[in-house]
Amino acid sequence: MAKERIRIGIMGLGVVGSGVARILMEKADRIQAHIETPVELVRVLVRDPQKKRDFQVPGHLLTTSSRDILDDPDIDIVIEVMGGEIPAYKYIEGAIQSGKHVITANKEVMAKYGPELLTLAHQRGVDILYEASVGGGIPLIGPFQHDLAANKIISIQAIINGTTNYILTRMASEGAEFGAALAEAQALGYAEADPTNDIEGIDAVYKLAVLATLAFHLPVRPADIYREGISRLTSRDFRYARELGYAIKLLAIAKEENGMVEARVHPSLVPQGFLLAQIGGVNNAVCVQGDLVGTVVFYGPGAGSKPTSSAIVADLILLAKNITAGLTGRFRLREESGKTISPMDQVQTRYYLRMSVADHPGVLAQIATVLGEHQISIASVIQKEADPVSQTAEIVIMTHLAREADMQDSLAKIRALPPVVQERCFFLRAEG
Amino acid sequence: MAKERIRIGIMGLGVVGSGVARILMEKADRIQAHIETPVELVRVLVRDPQKKRDFQVPGHLLTTSSRDILDDPDIDIVIEVMGGEIPAYKYIEGAIQSGKHVITANKEVMAKYGPELLTLAHQRGVDILYEASVGGGIPLIGPFQHDLAANKIISIQAIINGTTNYILTRMASEGAEFGAALAEAQALGYAEADPTNDIEGIDAVYKLAVLATLAFHLPVRPADIYREGISRLTSRDFRYARELGYAIKLLAIAKEENGMVEARVHPSLVPQGFLLAQIGGVNNAVCVQGDLVGTVVFYGPGAGSKPTSSAIVADLILLAKNITAGLTGRFRLREESGKTISPMDQVQTRYYLRMSVADHPGVLAQIATVLGEHQISIASVIQKEADPVSQTAEIVIMTHLAREADMQDSLAKIRALPPVVQERCFFLRAEG
Repeated sequence: MAKERIRIGIMGLGVVGSGVARILMEKADRIQAHIETPVELVRVLVRDPQKKRDFQVPGHLLTTSSRDILDDPDIDIVIEVMGGEIPAYKYIEGAIQSGKHVITANKEVMAKYGPELLTLAHQRGVDILYEASVGGGIPLIGPFQHDLAANKIISIQAIINGTTNYILTRMASEGAEFGAALAEAQALGYAEADPTNDIEGIDAVYKLAVLATLAFHLPVRPADIYREGISRLTSRDFRYARELGYAIKLLAIAKEENGMVEARVHPSLVPQGFLLAQIGGVNNAVCVQGDLVGTVVFYGPGAGSKPTSSAIVADLILLAKNITAGLTGRFRLREESGKTISPMDQVQTRYYLRMSVADHPGVLAQIATVLGEHQISIASVIQKEADPVSQTAEIVIMTHLAREADMQDSLAKIRALPPVVQERCFFLRAEG
Repeated sequence: MAKERIRIGIMGLGVVGSGVARILMEKADRIQAHIETPVELVRVLVRDPQKKRDFQVPGHLLTTSSRDILDDPDIDIVIEVMGGEIPAYKYIEGAIQSGKHVITANKEVMAKYGPELLTLAHQRGVDILYEASVGGGIPLIGPFQHDLAANKIISIQAIINGTTNYILTRMASEGAEFGAALAEAQALGYAEADPTNDIEGIDAVYKLAVLATLAFHLPVRPADIYREGISRLTSRDFRYARELGYAIKLLAIAKEENGMVEARVHPSLVPQGFLLAQIGGVNNAVCVQGDLVGTVVFYGPGAGSKPTSSAIVADLILLAKNITAGLTGRFRLREESGKTISPMDQVQTRYYLRMSVADHPGVLAQIATVLGEHQISIASVIQKEADPVSQTAEIVIMTHLAREADMQDSLAKIRALPPVVQERCFFLRAEG
């Protein structure tokens, strides 16, 4: 039953929604060149129809009632670009229940409910496409679903939050402290007034959940992902890291070994020779290691109206082709049995330790002894001349691979050593 | 008419062919998990059935006659991994004519005959997939066909030949001369005994033709692409480039402006801040600028048995799904009218000029005058102390944007200036 026309409803007319509406109208020819069936935007859900917007959608398309989209049997595709969990999740679920296809940029909903929504869509014979939910216009969902399908994925290491990468880039290049770099990011519109979601790694956790679920063939939920933000980093850490040959990035990491999947988001030292160490500003880069392909990296702007619209419209073209061919509801999230999430305690990585210690003889020996007792071996040490005023010296230690539980135990013991200034004993994890 | 079984013939059992056969046999479970219909390798064309190979394909599958594959009505998919133009092109065309789908890694055939083969496949209702023809396992064809479909592509700038990138990386990092770096690449198996195709840019031209044809919606043939190899570069050029803030890479470049498409492969100065300047060793990186997505980069190993097999098997999974769904022959190479290829003369870029000149007063003024008369303005100059033995000085000039024809004219005039040592007057183009 070939459709004469494919009708679209957009939910949300913020930055991304306006971008999509603009492209649907201004680039209709380019889109239509890919699709045999005419595509038409018929309804847009907004909170305030009177609001002035960069791109004015014709007033008769606007509605403030979600029912005008969800209950309209003529609408084939719902593009959800409201963001946030509620009510977006309910709208997406409702759309699928009514047999509509969904295109969404909603990382939070896909991270929390992706597996259920994908299963529901498959049952209802419709598609839910979500390329725009991670990495703006950088192709990521498509590559995992198709291009890398022959691979067993070994690891994902990604810079997937532009706000924090901007802040860290400024801290590294200007010697800025966190607060100043955040304020600058806010002034430039790269960080929100309430920056919590970005700087605490919540946004990155959502994106990693989406990617890891696809890559490792088991549902990886936000709650499964260890998370640490960037607000405790100091300019000194960047100086020491550089001296040791590293950059500092907020990494989203997921790895599988023998059926154990680890997933974590935290600031991490990255060897300067790694491509990820070179990624500056608000850009994203996702590094994927597969057993066949080796290491591939996908790089680009991770957010913004146009890049995100690029992904949404690509999904729309694909979906419209599938609808025209009478072929939808094909995608299944393939789950492989016998896999589990590693607890963070069991994760093995390298560590960077920075400590202020009273300038006494034998302090380094005491610290090294604690580490040795926990089977943690030291790769390199930086000890600077003591500060004559405070009579404290700063010691920085890079370890070889160690288990998180051992590191945490060591750290508790090191903090309790009398010469160590407890509140100035800080550690970071390191890749490579 | 759902097929009970999808049967595959492989043509060619070299490094890539063996890799594909191995995956089809050893990873059958993983592949089959994606596809409802069982997939079976039934025939492999080889030149010498007795030859010892890393991976031994069961002897009863081997044949030395292409007819055993092309004329076998039970074979649904031909995987062509012989390489070279003849007889591969004839086999591909024959397979399509007999209604078989084709998966190929053959950049030469796709560069020279891609548009015709794609059209023929569409007419015959079959698919020709060629993700493996460019960039090994790095997703590139898929992204251009799908993920970036909403974009008007502005430019492609790519490192798509691993051999030359290895050589240039060694010249840059070790101060090696071209001959020594090539010999090293040959010793390591990165360059062939006859390295012409790589070092003269022919391989890169094929790959650029494939990508540009997809990106700009007009057939871009190898003959349309200006080409220069890397054999004339000297270690001095790398030193001067670094001093000026550039790396030197063999770039494949294609750009569109106002319907004029330029396409060229030549060594190029790349600003050190560009991601492409950071790509070392045999890796590839393709930088794509789109009107919506901004600048995205795809990076990874550009060749090798496993990465190339990763792309071929991904194509196979996609194709098998489409065959199962009864949906093939859908892809059309979309051509946009009114576009033409720019002659190289009209290309605008920046230039790096290196000249040996007799150490006389006023030489730089003479050179600058010639450039000025051709509307070429100078961005920076390096002039080193004259060599006391040869009484010649070396002058290096970076220009602002200039037209190729003007540059060539200037160069002819500069070479004719008495103080200029004609055979040591050399230029390179620069991006950024």
